[in-house]
Amino acid sequence: MSLSPETLALVEGLRRGERRALAKSITLLESTRRDDRVRADALLNELLPSTGRSCRLGISGVPGAGKSTFIEALGLYLIERGHRVAVLAVDPSSSRSGGSVLGDKTRMERLSVQPAAYIRPSPSSGTLGGVAEKTREAMLACEAAGFDIIIIETVGVGQSEIAVAGMTDVFVLLQLPNAGDELQAIKRGVMEVADMIVINKADLDADAATRARAMITSALRTFSLHGRGDSQPPVLQLSALKGEGIADFWTAAGQIVAERHASGAFTERRRSQALSWMWDNVHARLLADFHAHPGVRAALPSVLQDVNEAKVAPSAAARALLELFKH
Amino acid sequence: MSLSPETLALVEGLRRGERRALAKSITLLESTRRDDRVRADALLNELLPSTGRSCRLGISGVPGAGKSTFIEALGLYLIERGHRVAVLAVDPSSSRSGGSVLGDKTRMERLSVQPAAYIRPSPSSGTLGGVAEKTREAMLACEAAGFDIIIIETVGVGQSEIAVAGMTDVFVLLQLPNAGDELQAIKRGVMEVADMIVINKADLDADAATRARAMITSALRTFSLHGRGDSQPPVLQLSALKGEGIADFWTAAGQIVAERHASGAFTERRRSQALSWMWDNVHARLLADFHAHPGVRAALPSVLQDVNEAKVAPSAAARALLELFKH
Repeated sequence: MSLSPETLALVEGLRRGERRALAKSITLLESTRRDDRVRADALLNELLPSTGRSCRLGISGVPGAGKSTFIEALGLYLIERGHRVAVLAVDPSSSRSGGSVLGDKTRMERLSVQPAAYIRPSPSSGTLGGVAEKTREAMLACEAAGFDIIIIETVGVGQSEIAVAGMTDVFVLLQLPNAGDELQAIKRGVMEVADMIVINKADLDADAATRARAMITSALRTFSLHGRGDSQPPVLQLSALKGEGIADFWTAAGQIVAERHASGAFTERRRSQALSWMWDNVHARLLADFHAHPGVRAALPSVLQDVNEAKVAPSAAARALLELFKH
Repeated sequence: MSLSPETLALVEGLRRGERRALAKSITLLESTRRDDRVRADALLNELLPSTGRSCRLGISGVPGAGKSTFIEALGLYLIERGHRVAVLAVDPSSSRSGGSVLGDKTRMERLSVQPAAYIRPSPSSGTLGGVAEKTREAMLACEAAGFDIIIIETVGVGQSEIAVAGMTDVFVLLQLPNAGDELQAIKRGVMEVADMIVINKADLDADAATRARAMITSALRTFSLHGRGDSQPPVLQLSALKGEGIADFWTAAGQIVAERHASGAFTERRRSQALSWMWDNVHARLLADFHAHPGVRAALPSVLQDVNEAKVAPSAAARALLELFKH
């Protein structure tokens, strides 16, 4: 694929670390227009050799867990140490709600004014698959622009959390020192993909935080007893608001990354994420093509009605629709 | 679709409740041969008006929870009361292991010799989607043959359990009175789809069973406090081995069914299950067609290698494969 002059200008701007080129690149990557998509693919493939050298950090937690406060404190800490920090988000609800995650930059106003920080709200294309896809591509653009730490924030909803765990190197679950919060996390299926568990707001009630930590550690132990095998993720306490525990958090995260680099698990995880990303994309586009097919669209209402009224077996209905799709 | 004489003979045999016709019908439904599939669709659509009038019961639990013992005790209890009971299974591992669920009818030897009982092991087509699909179709054949209670057994693995919950009217989770068993169930995501939770082997250690019950009830309460909304599923104790608590179980299951019939939830659940079934089928076949496409098959190894070596962006690779598929 040859690059158009506009795309080439974007690439050169990105390589110089220009924020404006980064913003324009992400806008291009997020575009759903067909001709934009061809340019976006060319851009991505051109950028690819300059990507992949950041640390990708996923942050999740229920509303009120203090994600913005934590990300701001961590971002400022990292910038002070010479890092360049990009903050992205995956929030499929943002198209409806107008953005519950990062919709409002004022939530991180000290971080957002830093020249070494770049904050971008969640794309709002509707489905989780679409949003996750665009965030993955934005992450590559940030890496090409020289950001060496990418933080991806998500809401405490199982599906989004699993998606973000699947695109980051270290996935952090932010918990509140509340009874039952750990059960919620287990229920959402997120406890088993967490690489680190952080009890935030530990300053508010030290006893509750200690109890929460004991509950979580015990829950994690139960799982490994039942065959999880992996070493247990560390459980830390901190106060993002007071900035207490941020340095310890970063040390622990760095240890996980170092251990995985040493064992080869880091590269293996990146590789398997790239393959999952490709297959997710194939599945999503196959379905989109199916739903956009004129024959399928025309037949669907009556087929759905037949299935609803149990006039045709669901599997026979599926086969009838697929026959239409093939022609 | 017109019926061939052989298929017509199957239909008539089924309507007379003949076990041989039932076994042959399920074998046809399980066949992966293309011409068999056309006959199978015709058979399904012909049977459809005679289906749907059973109570569909899903039973799950980890190995050792006593699923076979429970199903045998329940089946014998129901047959004594004039019901006809079919027992099917969803166990995607059975193709590899030779069958861990219902592979061995001797595990239910008293039930299997009953004229009013029909036991069929899990189909072993490999993927969960395929196995679930065939079990759904076998369920319809059993209903057409006059079985009014269909019990679908599955293994205690999250995905299979969710699939079985999605094809039954009442999904029962069998638990052991062991510490941590409820956390496992929450982790598998099965606690939230369970309509009833049954602590089996309650005779072995009454204290442990009572503690398990309290733990489960408390976990369920935590969830509803956090917005689940539904009424909580009943938590029962019983001993399948001694036959204690089976009548109470059946009364509680009947109450759930009666309440759902009264509220309209029963019909709504059946309807939405039929739609999910259709879409699952569409997705699975789209993917199968994609993977079977000669152009895709030829290009896939080098595309995978490029993605593995980060030479091409995963989303660009996906689009390249989809272009091949379209031609």
